[in-house]
Amino acid sequence: MKKLIDDVESVVPDALRGLAAAHPGLRVDVDNQIVFRASGSRPGKVGLVSGGGSGHEPLHAGFVGYGMLDAACAGEIFTSPVPDQMIEATTAVDSGAGVLHIVKNYTGDVLNFQMAAELSGEEGVRVESVLVDDDVAVRDSLYTAGRRGTGATVFVEKIAGALAETGAPLPEVARVAREVNARSRSFGVALSPCTTPAAGRPTFDLSDTEIELGIGIHGEPGRTRSAMRPARELVHIAMDAIHEDLPISGDTLVMVNGMGGTPLIELYIAYAAVVEHLAEKGARAARNLVGNYVTSLDMQGFSITVCRLNEELTRLWDAPVETPALRWGR
Amino acid sequence: MKKLIDDVESVVPDALRGLAAAHPGLRVDVDNQIVFRASGSRPGKVGLVSGGGSGHEPLHAGFVGYGMLDAACAGEIFTSPVPDQMIEATTAVDSGAGVLHIVKNYTGDVLNFQMAAELSGEEGVRVESVLVDDDVAVRDSLYTAGRRGTGATVFVEKIAGALAETGAPLPEVARVAREVNARSRSFGVALSPCTTPAAGRPTFDLSDTEIELGIGIHGEPGRTRSAMRPARELVHIAMDAIHEDLPISGDTLVMVNGMGGTPLIELYIAYAAVVEHLAEKGARAARNLVGNYVTSLDMQGFSITVCRLNEELTRLWDAPVETPALRWGR
Repeated sequence: MKKLIDDVESVVPDALRGLAAAHPGLRVDVDNQIVFRASGSRPGKVGLVSGGGSGHEPLHAGFVGYGMLDAACAGEIFTSPVPDQMIEATTAVDSGAGVLHIVKNYTGDVLNFQMAAELSGEEGVRVESVLVDDDVAVRDSLYTAGRRGTGATVFVEKIAGALAETGAPLPEVARVAREVNARSRSFGVALSPCTTPAAGRPTFDLSDTEIELGIGIHGEPGRTRSAMRPARELVHIAMDAIHEDLPISGDTLVMVNGMGGTPLIELYIAYAAVVEHLAEKGARAARNLVGNYVTSLDMQGFSITVCRLNEELTRLWDAPVETPALRWGR
Repeated sequence: MKKLIDDVESVVPDALRGLAAAHPGLRVDVDNQIVFRASGSRPGKVGLVSGGGSGHEPLHAGFVGYGMLDAACAGEIFTSPVPDQMIEATTAVDSGAGVLHIVKNYTGDVLNFQMAAELSGEEGVRVESVLVDDDVAVRDSLYTAGRRGTGATVFVEKIAGALAETGAPLPEVARVAREVNARSRSFGVALSPCTTPAAGRPTFDLSDTEIELGIGIHGEPGRTRSAMRPARELVHIAMDAIHEDLPISGDTLVMVNGMGGTPLIELYIAYAAVVEHLAEKGARAARNLVGNYVTSLDMQGFSITVCRLNEELTRLWDAPVETPALRWGR
């Protein structure tokens, strides 16, 4: 294993120190592994807190800032943060309007956020939770009961974050977050496994001609193995899986997401195929993201997330955002 | 080789179709492999044209837009664009104020841009050229006479682009571009080779415990091989090599650039070490970029670019920019 790290034991805090140094708009509590907006919380604004295992950068800390999250809790690599982190983040960002927890559907994250919501409630913070479960590839897995939460997390954080900036009340922000999740589906393909620093070897084996269809973001198994195929065929497999679960039509928001080790030039090739596929279905990508947003360390591969837009969601997607990983229009 | 492509022969046009679909702010001439701003050229503004081999995405097409380039010419993978592309781009973006060519120092690029400048001149376009040669690792290489052009290209394109937006005349825009290059130095480290689609196998061999110091962006050899080391030591080697060539002091603009296959979490670990190293030298990173900006397909590794800022360069760096890969403050 060759990784650009100093010590297997301190990967997350070492990276958080770099994140803090790079982004003056963030305040990073390295000891507790919590990333806040440097500007603090605005009275009357619902606070948005998310978090999860590290190794998926820029998720979640890269989405802290105006128009998205108020705080992100970073767990160890591929390991849920603990309730204490979530409670500290929650109480810190509450300005009286309550806090929304955005939780990817993995057993550890769900249990820990649940406990944090209860304990924060006892401290007088109103908390609502939204569960993100957009991955159509598998139902139940090593890490989850039900569908896994993957790429739609970015859409939920962006759109709920935009609504929260308008001063909307907690039930409204929670409603729109759930609506984004309900309208979004994802499917991922791995061309290679990833290697966690602690394990020091690939999470699974794939031969030079094999790929894994329906991969998760922790190197957990997908739906099935297959021979390597052209990009267009892989995109069609992913889009068909999504369409089967939630028919695609009209205006969509599409993310072609790199898993961390895939060059951008390849992601654009995949995006061209996505656009073709949508046209065949009479749909279109009204908005898009192409790049590394929800990664799996050094894994080569990609995922596609499709969200069926409506007028409200489009407007909130277009609203200004200013975070390390997403920034426009302010 | 497993790559997310359809056809080894059409990698560049296939990616350009995706780029065009993803970014309505760009106009992409897929046949001629030229990327323009969709808004066209503004009368009185100096045009900025760059380009080079593909495989370094987001460079250069990802830097076309307000505040940076007017056009980028895409060659085949790791191969210079041809003079015809450059002439077409140059004449198209000239609004009467002349055009600046930003050329990375590789023999093919230099010769082709030189021919394009002469022929565009014969068509009545005033052209100035700036050569970017920031890489301290090697003097002369497989691809170059003198130092190679790498990460500083992003700084030159951003800062000269910002000055051009103010309506500054061509000699001024060329002067600031050359000043950025003169004040910038880079050094790269490869943890793995890259694989070009055409070759189908890695450009060189590195064992599980070896790295290549002073790597270029085409998988060409570096200065020396070494055993793998902790991130902090690799950063110190890179920073010392830069410092030896151009002493680092005062306020700097620093880029920790991923080579394409390195996870963002590792780049932040490297950036934390850069900041420490600067502090030891009594310098600081007043501005920074951490991410994939000048890549080498799927190579794992990183490069560091340091530019010694002054007041003018800082102001131009901070000026609004709106491109696919860099965007702030407009």
